[in-house]
Amino acid sequence: MSQKIRIGKIATLLAMLDENEYSSFESIFDEVDTCLGKVGSMNMQKVISAVETAVKRSGLIEEGVYRETHALYHTIVEALEGVTRGQLAIGETMRTVGLRFVVVRGEPYAEEKEGEWIAVAFYGTIGAPIRGLEHEAVGLGINHI
Amino acid sequence: MSQKIRIGKIATLLAMLDENEYSSFESIFDEVDTCLGKVGSMNMQKVISAVETAVKRSGLIEEGVYRETHALYHTIVEALEGVTRGQLAIGETMRTVGLRFVVVRGEPYAEEKEGEWIAVAFYGTIGAPIRGLEHEAVGLGINHI
Amino acid sequence: MSQKIRIGKIATLLAMLDENEYSSFESIFDEVDTCLGKVGSMNMQKVISAVETAVKRSGLIEEGVYRETHALYHTIVEALEGVTRGQLAIGETMRTVGLRFVVVRGEPYAEEKEGEWIAVAFYGTIGAPIRGLEHEAVGLGINHI
Amino acid sequence: MSQKIRIGKIATLLAMLDENEYSSFESIFDEVDTCLGKVGSMNMQKVISAVETAVKRSGLIEEGVYRETHALYHTIVEALEGVTRGQLAIGETMRTVGLRFVVVRGEPYAEEKEGEWIAVAFYGTIGAPIRGLEHEAVGLGINHI
Amino acid sequence: MSQKIRIGKIATLLAMLDENEYSSFESIFDEVDTCLGKVGSMNMQKVISAVETAVKRSGLIEEGVYRETHALYHTIVEALEGVTRGQLAIGETMRTVGLRFVVVRGEPYAEEKEGEWIAVAFYGTIGAPIRGLEHEAVGLGINHI
Amino acid sequence: MSQKIRIGKIATLLAMLDENEYSSFESIFDEVDTCLGKVGSMNMQKVISAVETAVKRSGLIEEGVYRETHALYHTIVEALEGVTRGQLAIGETMRTVGLRFVVVRGEPYAEEKEGEWIAVAFYGTIGAPIRGLEHEAVGLGINHI
Ligand SMILES: [Mg+2]
Ligand SMILES: [Mg+2]
Ligand SMILES: [Mg+2]
Ligand SMILES: [Mg+2]
Ligand SMILES: [Mg+2]
Ligand SMILES: [Mg+2]
Repeated sequence: MSQKIRIGKIATLLAMLDENEYSSFESIFDEVDTCLGKVGSMNMQKVISAVETAVKRSGLIEEGVYRETHALYHTIVEALEGVTRGQLAIGETMRTVGLRFVVVRGEPYAEEKEGEWIAVAFYGTIGAPIRGLEHEAVGLGINHI
Repeated sequence: MSQKIRIGKIATLLAMLDENEYSSFESIFDEVDTCLGKVGSMNMQKVISAVETAVKRSGLIEEGVYRETHALYHTIVEALEGVTRGQLAIGETMRTVGLRFVVVRGEPYAEEKEGEWIAVAFYGTIGAPIRGLEHEAVGLGINHI
Repeated sequence: MSQKIRIGKIATLLAMLDENEYSSFESIFDEVDTCLGKVGSMNMQKVISAVETAVKRSGLIEEGVYRETHALYHTIVEALEGVTRGQLAIGETMRTVGLRFVVVRGEPYAEEKEGEWIAVAFYGTIGAPIRGLEHEAVGLGINHI
Repeated sequence: MSQKIRIGKIATLLAMLDENEYSSFESIFDEVDTCLGKVGSMNMQKVISAVETAVKRSGLIEEGVYRETHALYHTIVEALEGVTRGQLAIGETMRTVGLRFVVVRGEPYAEEKEGEWIAVAFYGTIGAPIRGLEHEAVGLGINHI
Repeated sequence: MSQKIRIGKIATLLAMLDENEYSSFESIFDEVDTCLGKVGSMNMQKVISAVETAVKRSGLIEEGVYRETHALYHTIVEALEGVTRGQLAIGETMRTVGLRFVVVRGEPYAEEKEGEWIAVAFYGTIGAPIRGLEHEAVGLGINHI
Repeated sequence: MSQKIRIGKIATLLAMLDENEYSSFESIFDEVDTCLGKVGSMNMQKVISAVETAVKRSGLIEEGVYRETHALYHTIVEALEGVTRGQLAIGETMRTVGLRFVVVRGEPYAEEKEGEWIAVAFYGTIGAPIRGLEHEAVGLGINHI
């Protein structure tokens, strides 16, 4: 099995790069469907909702189909493990996050049978609920869809 | 507090980008000290050791000083939480990883008092111990040093 | 040590079976004391409370005795690990549950010295807080009491 | 969305019931594809391998297709969370397991778009590595495939 | 490297001992800077805040400096892992705590380069939100600062 | 319910205090049964075994009775959560421990019905597998027995 499109790398780059840094990657970004957004919260539920809502609005997944909602949900949670690093909690553990998120849907593998996969990437800051008392955080989840 | 250098972004980009993609970022890479390496294993211990050994050889941390070893260790473990997403284990849970890692040391904050911080980033694949049965993974840890 | 009564199997079966499926198991259900109930919530605290309240009302444990409350509490939490599979949270991770629960108290082992044990089983659904966007979940905890 | 076939219940029942208890459930067992096996070990890797090998041999998933291997893997790990209840480890935490496992593949939802799902159930014992010093354990994982 | 001052032992003793038990340890308590307090809550956030506020008021860490806040935060969370033993949650898992906490700042190692470290210790009770239905709990975190 | 004997405090003190510091606490140590030992290892299994073996040899629990073995096992694991603070692993995460352990059995509560409870305390160091690159760690588990 060989990966022809690296959807995880695409999602992470899109979440991290500023607009002026995009240009050199535009060709690889065009090979997949993407959805971008931002969320700042002490509430994990709001972070998950923000991604789910953005994805459904963009049409990246089919809203009424649980199969796709299920795939997206577990991918978001996997990505949040990278952001929270050990305790899947933010407000409860007195932290706040400011994150950009990117969801990518595409066919990463050369074999047609491997079908579509989804990547969710977060990039931003995590820290005390006081502006500036924070450091960077990254998270990436990948799932078949 | 404002971040003047984003050591997490630098570490993650360096771990993800191919050489021909580097060029546009060279100026930001020059503002920090970095150490790069690769490791493929089913053994978490070997992954941690590979990073620690590379860092000590490169002189990025002072080998005899526990303070620095301690800062590095916790940063590696935080980064591995993103790679493993929920269970800090690879071989025990029948997975293998093939990872590039980057360690960055620098002063991310404008205020001099904030001093030096360290970032550890992983990028690569995680999956079944059969070539190709794998997907991408990313992890980032950040700590004061 | 040999198990003469499988309290975990009894609890799980009682939580999963519809009334018309009970009949063939009635003889084994009669060998133990049981307490049944239902709870639907996004709030883990309410799920734990629902079980504790039902158990105390039924007289299955002695209400004023911490020893018994302690045994029950840890058994509930163990069972919820199976329901939540990795993050002991529901609302915080944007999930809702609809569960039937069964608590069984009995003497599973042939040796008299092994005394009484308790089993808590959950069966039902977990998923997005939208009706139908959910799949099944099971959890079983066992403890000495 | 309504569940017409409860693959989780089927998998858990099949893992728990003795042959003479099967008869009353045969009609619901016939609506899905199943694979059964047994494994006893202090080694989590061997438990995961035992299930993967049995499933591939039975043809329940397509061996060369990573998509299906990936779905199965995460379902096994979810089920093991229920078995281990808090620490995804057995030998490392000085425990041994003796488990029956059942994998079920079928279409649980009435809507055709929901497609195929997979359930992995474990039932057996967990305890000290001394015969008899053990109690029951159950685990269930569910995933889209 | 040799530890000349055991800041973890000092913090734990101070959190556990009654005033009349202090006397024999006074000489070792004088070698470090300490801050003490109490907190009772079902809310993890309040427990973390109580420690952070007490430490900042006492001047044990420099309030405006994120580096020090970051070191303290991770040390508190490490100590809470010992208190909660497996699930970093209290109210969500229907528990309440009544804790004394002690924060110690000092130079535990003989080598000057090892610099300052911080220890956070908790001692008290954890249990059901009913007075007396509780048992003891201890937690200790250690970090470089 | 009121605690007349604090078995957790006794166990933690006994694990932490040097012989010359004991004297002032001897009266409270006499109210319970205790068992002490030492273990140094990168292997969690060996740490658990060391405690179990010492306890059985000392006669603090009845060896053939699973009920008592089960109570002890979960108490040890709870105490190790405090030692490892987030990942219940040592060698796998490239750490080694040098620990003193104390097991206390007694009746902490005034009410006779509360019966016997067990406390397991660890105190020592955790760190890199190089002498001196380590810091202190504490863990306490409590259970009814
Ligand atoms: Mg995966
Ligand atoms: Mg941090
Ligand atoms: Mg148990
Ligand atoms: Mg699911
Ligand atoms: Mg440490
Ligand atoms: Mg307890």
